[in-house]
Amino acid sequence: MKFIEPRTLKGFHDYLPAEQITRQAAIQKIARIFERFGFEPLDTPALEYEDVLTGKYGDEGEALMYRFRDHGDRGVAMRYDLTVPLVRVVAQYENDLPRPFKRYQVAPVWRADKPQKGRYREFIQCDVDVVGSKVGMPDAECVAIIEQVMLAVGLKKFAIKINNRKILNGVVAASGVAPEHVLGAIRVIDKLEKIGAGAVAEELHRACGLSTGDAEKLIELLASGVEKVRRVNSLEVAQGFAELDAVLANLEALHAGHVEVDLTLARGLDYYTSTVVETVITETPEAQKYGSVAGGGRYDGLLKMFTGKDVPAVGIAVGLDRLLPALQELGLLGAGHVTDVLVLNMGSEFEAEYLAMAAELRKAGVNAEIVYDGSDMKKQFRYAEQKGALFAVLYGEDERAAGTVTVRELATREQQTVLRKNFVAEVLARLPERR
Amino acid sequence: MKFIEPRTLKGFHDYLPAEQITRQAAIQKIARIFERFGFEPLDTPALEYEDVLTGKYGDEGEALMYRFRDHGDRGVAMRYDLTVPLVRVVAQYENDLPRPFKRYQVAPVWRADKPQKGRYREFIQCDVDVVGSKVGMPDAECVAIIEQVMLAVGLKKFAIKINNRKILNGVVAASGVAPEHVLGAIRVIDKLEKIGAGAVAEELHRACGLSTGDAEKLIELLASGVEKVRRVNSLEVAQGFAELDAVLANLEALHAGHVEVDLTLARGLDYYTSTVVETVITETPEAQKYGSVAGGGRYDGLLKMFTGKDVPAVGIAVGLDRLLPALQELGLLGAGHVTDVLVLNMGSEFEAEYLAMAAELRKAGVNAEIVYDGSDMKKQFRYAEQKGALFAVLYGEDERAAGTVTVRELATREQQTVLRKNFVAEVLARLPERR
Repeated sequence: MKFIEPRTLKGFHDYLPAEQITRQAAIQKIARIFERFGFEPLDTPALEYEDVLTGKYGDEGEALMYRFRDHGDRGVAMRYDLTVPLVRVVAQYENDLPRPFKRYQVAPVWRADKPQKGRYREFIQCDVDVVGSKVGMPDAECVAIIEQVMLAVGLKKFAIKINNRKILNGVVAASGVAPEHVLGAIRVIDKLEKIGAGAVAEELHRACGLSTGDAEKLIELLASGVEKVRRVNSLEVAQGFAELDAVLANLEALHAGHVEVDLTLARGLDYYTSTVVETVITETPEAQKYGSVAGGGRYDGLLKMFTGKDVPAVGIAVGLDRLLPALQELGLLGAGHVTDVLVLNMGSEFEAEYLAMAAELRKAGVNAEIVYDGSDMKKQFRYAEQKGALFAVLYGEDERAAGTVTVRELATREQQTVLRKNFVAEVLARLPERR
Repeated sequence: MKFIEPRTLKGFHDYLPAEQITRQAAIQKIARIFERFGFEPLDTPALEYEDVLTGKYGDEGEALMYRFRDHGDRGVAMRYDLTVPLVRVVAQYENDLPRPFKRYQVAPVWRADKPQKGRYREFIQCDVDVVGSKVGMPDAECVAIIEQVMLAVGLKKFAIKINNRKILNGVVAASGVAPEHVLGAIRVIDKLEKIGAGAVAEELHRACGLSTGDAEKLIELLASGVEKVRRVNSLEVAQGFAELDAVLANLEALHAGHVEVDLTLARGLDYYTSTVVETVITETPEAQKYGSVAGGGRYDGLLKMFTGKDVPAVGIAVGLDRLLPALQELGLLGAGHVTDVLVLNMGSEFEAEYLAMAAELRKAGVNAEIVYDGSDMKKQFRYAEQKGALFAVLYGEDERAAGTVTVRELATREQQTVLRKNFVAEVLARLPERR
């Protein structure tokens, strides 16, 4: 007989319980914050009609999309992000949805990217979006959500960088870049932190038709700070600052901190039109290597591709699969556990009593399990450790005769014999407050 | 410009918030019960190597699998159930996992089935499995979990049907079916409820080589009840009853009810070897049309395909996408909501105050949102209704001048004016206990 080699596809990842317990806890924390701000959950299929997804991510992105023909010979594609499905939903159910439509979605997306540290071909996105409201309060609330999420997972030092695409557009255009090259130039500027000012100037010259001198001046200007850029004579720059100032004022009203204006921030995706945001962890110099762990922006034009109508929209995504490894490295991920109490097995003659004890504990809200196969005690304690159980319950001949139960705290190895009829109350008294 | 038609693939479904809120609540309830019994969460990729999934579901099943070649020309397939990925994980990480390995997984699976009522091409499975423990307590706990789940979602009348494949094997073999036709005969018997005794006898005759008389006797015997079948002279039947009796005794110790022995129950899948379980809702005669809403069994041979070793395993799955429509029809699905309090918008000059009020409410654990665009009040109240908000907060010129806030209960339309500085406490006092 030929055995099948058990293996996972490259770029995909199994989350064994130890990891999945903390991952699930983080997702719940994040979803709870999304709900605090009045966002409701949405779920969309993993598969979409191909033409619903194509034409939105640029050629480079599209090449990474998982696409195939289904049993009915339809061109289908696996979800590439959560924004385009949202936009499809808004176009499709326009009249059934409240306006603005505030939804969150926590779901995997798939990109056949080159696998690297912290980047998988399947990863969870945690998105919140407001569709149907103009720039201002919704943008600020999205930024405030990022702050709340970062604080909730235990981070203290992080920077939420904010900019407005209109400022960038206006400044780039004013520097002499031809209209058809503005978007390209912004994509180049986005690489400033990665490749440095010299290389960016070079590329602006080569690809966007700026003289080297003008390219250098443009980079210098963007780095010189808000007050100088504000004086650029451009309607678009003025409009961008008006929007940015409104969002910043709203953030102040929300008492949100950790926000920094960064006029070089562009974000790669083409569809942003106004507010753009990224978040870097600054707890240690190394933490920054994880890149942006949460970001997004305003994309007022995307819905037009479906409906022809201009519908304003803004949203952010938390990149869980970047955030969690960073937290792990910073020692901010505690070890979770599921089983509170493990009922040890001293022989099959006690089975009925073990089952009754476990049932009583569960009824009282305790996560309890029984060792099914009564092997040697060493193995049973090893199992208790693997499950991270807090207490073990021992019940054998002696306990049965005396009408008692022995309760052992696994961390301290302290144990106490209590009456069988009181044992649930005794366990409850020893358990820490429910998570 | 050509617009893209916003549409969902046939057999796929968008869960808009109203539906997704209750769906998520049900999933959380189910997961909480799984954890009560000491099962830990696992997450596996949506895509697997094709050969990991093929050869396990029979030809009919395999034909429904979504398969394609990925960017690296690997044959890949979308997850078809959660059992085979579990078995792969156990084979792959054998030494890193506790034994027994008790895991749960709640995740979508994909089958290119003919779409029909309550059957989608993408649906959520909620699985619990115990890998590495012999028949007995684990089987009983899986059944008890089904009962707990049914009760938790509000069902009172339902039947968890239980059988043991060995009994069925033994009885079928003793009736004269040749060994190579036993599995086929069991698959035919599985259709009893659907197509009736006459058609089953006919098919047993035609496909499994039984005389019509023997086929009729076989069906009669299976329907005649436990005591008569128990007397069939077959080692396999005796072994099957020994296992079934042990599981039933364990269920009694767990104080589990709603369990019925059904000796005709087979379950379609080939890989079951011992305990098999299905659950039907019996609240109304119509509720039964949803078929089995939770079921599973013991599959002691499946792991052998990966490792060559016999590893015992048992598990059950709750079919959420069958269960929820049934609950809906029975009026057991309440309407959920996310937003507790909606801060109405009486003009952009109050924005900063609205943001501060919302921030205060959120800090106190209240889900609060602001109407971003101050449109007419009728629209705002309509929005509050769409979101199912419990309270609206009104704050305009008068309230600002008086240092007050008006709190309006949306269901009763009763409103009260309270001091601005006390308003969070006032809202908290009016809110029902946190879900």
